[in-house]
Amino acid sequence: METKPVYKSDIQIAQEAVMEPISVIAAKIGLGPDDIELYGKYKAKISYEAINNLPQTDEGKIILVTSINPTPAGEGKSTVTVGLGDALSQLGKKTIIAMREPSLGPTMGIKGGAAGGGYSQILPMEDINLHFTGDIHAITAANNALSALIDNHIHQGNELKIDPRRIIWKRVLDINDRALRKVVIGLGGPVQGVPREDGFDITVASEIMAVLCLAVDLKDLKKRISSIVVAYNVDKEPVTVGDLGVEGALTLLLKDALKPNLVQTVEHTPALVHGGPFANIAHGCNSVMATKTAAKLADFVVTESGFGADLGAEKFLHIKSRAAGLKPSAVVIVATIRALKMHGGVIKTELMTENVQALEKGLDNLKKHIETIKQFELPFVVAVNRFVTDTKEEVSLLLKWCEENGVSASLTEVWEHGGKGGLDLGEKVIQAIQNQENNFHSLYDVSDSLEEKITAIVQKVYGGKGVEFSTKAFRQLKEAEKNGWGHLPVCMAKTQYSLSDDPNKLGRPSEFTIHVRELIPKLGAGFVVALTGDVMTMPGLPKKPAANGMDVDDEGRAVGLF
Amino acid sequence: METKPVYKSDIQIAQEAVMEPISVIAAKIGLGPDDIELYGKYKAKISYEAINNLPQTDEGKIILVTSINPTPAGEGKSTVTVGLGDALSQLGKKTIIAMREPSLGPTMGIKGGAAGGGYSQILPMEDINLHFTGDIHAITAANNALSALIDNHIHQGNELKIDPRRIIWKRVLDINDRALRKVVIGLGGPVQGVPREDGFDITVASEIMAVLCLAVDLKDLKKRISSIVVAYNVDKEPVTVGDLGVEGALTLLLKDALKPNLVQTVEHTPALVHGGPFANIAHGCNSVMATKTAAKLADFVVTESGFGADLGAEKFLHIKSRAAGLKPSAVVIVATIRALKMHGGVIKTELMTENVQALEKGLDNLKKHIETIKQFELPFVVAVNRFVTDTKEEVSLLLKWCEENGVSASLTEVWEHGGKGGLDLGEKVIQAIQNQENNFHSLYDVSDSLEEKITAIVQKVYGGKGVEFSTKAFRQLKEAEKNGWGHLPVCMAKTQYSLSDDPNKLGRPSEFTIHVRELIPKLGAGFVVALTGDVMTMPGLPKKPAANGMDVDDEGRAVGLF
Repeated sequence: METKPVYKSDIQIAQEAVMEPISVIAAKIGLGPDDIELYGKYKAKISYEAINNLPQTDEGKIILVTSINPTPAGEGKSTVTVGLGDALSQLGKKTIIAMREPSLGPTMGIKGGAAGGGYSQILPMEDINLHFTGDIHAITAANNALSALIDNHIHQGNELKIDPRRIIWKRVLDINDRALRKVVIGLGGPVQGVPREDGFDITVASEIMAVLCLAVDLKDLKKRISSIVVAYNVDKEPVTVGDLGVEGALTLLLKDALKPNLVQTVEHTPALVHGGPFANIAHGCNSVMATKTAAKLADFVVTESGFGADLGAEKFLHIKSRAAGLKPSAVVIVATIRALKMHGGVIKTELMTENVQALEKGLDNLKKHIETIKQFELPFVVAVNRFVTDTKEEVSLLLKWCEENGVSASLTEVWEHGGKGGLDLGEKVIQAIQNQENNFHSLYDVSDSLEEKITAIVQKVYGGKGVEFSTKAFRQLKEAEKNGWGHLPVCMAKTQYSLSDDPNKLGRPSEFTIHVRELIPKLGAGFVVALTGDVMTMPGLPKKPAANGMDVDDEGRAVGLF
Repeated sequence: METKPVYKSDIQIAQEAVMEPISVIAAKIGLGPDDIELYGKYKAKISYEAINNLPQTDEGKIILVTSINPTPAGEGKSTVTVGLGDALSQLGKKTIIAMREPSLGPTMGIKGGAAGGGYSQILPMEDINLHFTGDIHAITAANNALSALIDNHIHQGNELKIDPRRIIWKRVLDINDRALRKVVIGLGGPVQGVPREDGFDITVASEIMAVLCLAVDLKDLKKRISSIVVAYNVDKEPVTVGDLGVEGALTLLLKDALKPNLVQTVEHTPALVHGGPFANIAHGCNSVMATKTAAKLADFVVTESGFGADLGAEKFLHIKSRAAGLKPSAVVIVATIRALKMHGGVIKTELMTENVQALEKGLDNLKKHIETIKQFELPFVVAVNRFVTDTKEEVSLLLKWCEENGVSASLTEVWEHGGKGGLDLGEKVIQAIQNQENNFHSLYDVSDSLEEKITAIVQKVYGGKGVEFSTKAFRQLKEAEKNGWGHLPVCMAKTQYSLSDDPNKLGRPSEFTIHVRELIPKLGAGFVVALTGDVMTMPGLPKKPAANGMDVDDEGRAVGLF
């Protein structure tokens, strides 16, 4: 683009958009007034009864949107997800978008909201980015009720002989708050409980969030919650929520949070926005409830997974698909010129300047993710999410490279033009589903040992040499196998910025080793987390938090959300 | 009652009740579909626009329900509030009930819910007792966002020179969690912030809750939030939310929480259930927004205040009425035979046994509260909330005493019979409004010094001899006057169990001194809190928490809530 037009802000576009009543959106996908529970005029939850009455076959084709390794420059994966959904709608396909719900922490901090951008947004943007329908607050409440019940159990006599030094269940808050990462609680004498070390994670990192996103119904949710390991007793045996006898109360707190939330895009495409577990500590996909419901209600479901294909997509394909019996029909790999240039060595402040050499070098990162999706034998399309600073030279280099390598690619302008900017992508995705072979399979056998599964991910997905376990992790590996947890899938906790566990190694590092420092059983979610490098489970606020620019006018309209 | 019939549980009655759609309830009080924002079929918030379009005169007569000093035996003040509202409706009066919303902490702990009881309940009882419309979660989020912003400010350079040892803003959670009363945060090295002592209160004890309940609109809410003192700087000067520049973001988080919630009773009387500040650390009344809206929409508003008349009613009359320009038309003082017997010296396990002597002795407590309401020169009625264990002898003694002393009294059976059980009470309240003189006035002049105001409350409301200030409190008294806070009303934080500050002194203690150990400025709420004795701002869980009996069935219906 030669000249830089004046663009509207996301919140301006969102507030100017004329929404349809959510009952109208529901009717589009065959849901009547009794099938939904309204939260205001533009948000609704789908009732259990409505979901139970749907046909038991999910015929809708699932399109998974993933990306190259993200950079602070931003890839716009959510924006492409929304834009692709709108494009498919414009192409006459009955489409539902299935996305994660944003966390308040990053919204108040540095990242801003997560409802897409420009003309590819989900609405009402303010509500979705603030408390929405209260799901995340319900998870905070359930998580912290469990914490209080654990500490109370110890205080009241500790019948289960919980070792206060071996409690792995942490408290959570949906706010970026570094001061709560490491705390000492129970101070002040015998009346205030038993002093011990503890820490707070951000709510989306809670196992309850992962559990909510993997449960297929309330009964399954309760069963999963009951299995959560919260601590070890003095004999080093695991203590579960079921041992404490509070799985019923915790499930009760989540009885509405498990229902998928229905909203709409700027172009009135229905969107189920539900669940949002961290893609590092957890599996990073929206809920199985929403994805399966969408697949029953629509012909096409566009969904996303967190961070790059090495994290979110790997987990979608190995964890969520397995747990829910899903088979994606195609994958969209989002790439941006800016991010590829960063992978090619350009620093953030110089991304506005044309740099074809760096782009060419950065393509290695995209190449690896393409290879990964090819290993899963899934149809795919590369979506080049256009930014106004991209030059013609850069764009044509990227598209030419795709063409030369037989990769289906599409330049999308969904941020600027909504669904219209993604029509070509939509068509190419439909073609990919029709023409490319789909022999979707796992890259490991779930009956392999944990070590074998981790090694398979490192070598096949990250392109690394091998794995090194810390003494602690090695001991935990043996304990996990002994406890009968060896048959579970592995959920890798790794930096999103690099294919390796070193966030500074951009592009396509090779010959690297992944260092597993700790294993954490997440029996409710049904996986074992392998922690590599320094994984942050409670972010901090920046020097100038986004909160300082936020306001609300006298009529209750949000100001300064982005 | 000679025989003990089989009674249904509260949740059974609630789940068997057939609710009307909340739009029908709204229509009863003149609110159309565009005036309300639905939260499912049976809950709604009233929009700002609808509230702004109401006539600016609040004509409805406000009836304040209070009680004698509560005991673990339970007085049923909420139940009488609901039953009286239903009775007035049955008497053909256009009535709205205005109550506080329950806190999840006590619900999961020992106290159970707070939606009334028996056939005098507000519905949907499960939702109201769980997350309701998310108001309390929004307050938790705003409170803790502020905490994170304070610690982040210090971590990022501390431009305001906040003294980390003098931060008075605490974190909150809506759960009973004694282990969080005293904590050390910011541990783990320089990257994790600055270590300091902190503590968690229960959310309803947050000043944000008090502020939400006293604000008249969003603009006022923002102004009040801006005035909140969060800490002192190294020069011992107060630091406010406004100094941090985040009042806009915090108000944004509360933009929906400030809207009153509309629900219904078992008998379909409209009820505004909104706000619920602690009656010890804060003023303990439902929101001004809800009370004033109710007074504009109905002829009679039945509302309650927390704990006994020495705490909740005193604060309603001195703080809320003053802030909102309200003039109550009558007061109902709830008493039970069981509680009066406890005030007369009977231990909890022997309350089932008739004990006329103890009852007679315990009447002293009721007598003091009657005298207090008489000092305010307000019409009043005593409501004797009947329990199945009350004997004929006991009931007639109590009623006879009232008659002999010229006190209008009514035996209510609203728990068992709903509004029908409160018809006599309703008629007597109407008579009191018509026949008793109403010269409502404050018991102190707000321009008096803080010490004079505290002394007035102690002598006139508690019946004590005088006040003793700790060295610390005395210093704070002088500092408060110096800071220009002397003109504010005082919010007493005192045990609810006794007129004195010693919870063991039941009945009507005399010649006692109140010990003020600390003063806390609550400039957002617009009062100075005087802490006496040990006031609990974070409850603990009992040996067998209510949570252990809770569950949800596969269809999402609550089990074990009470």
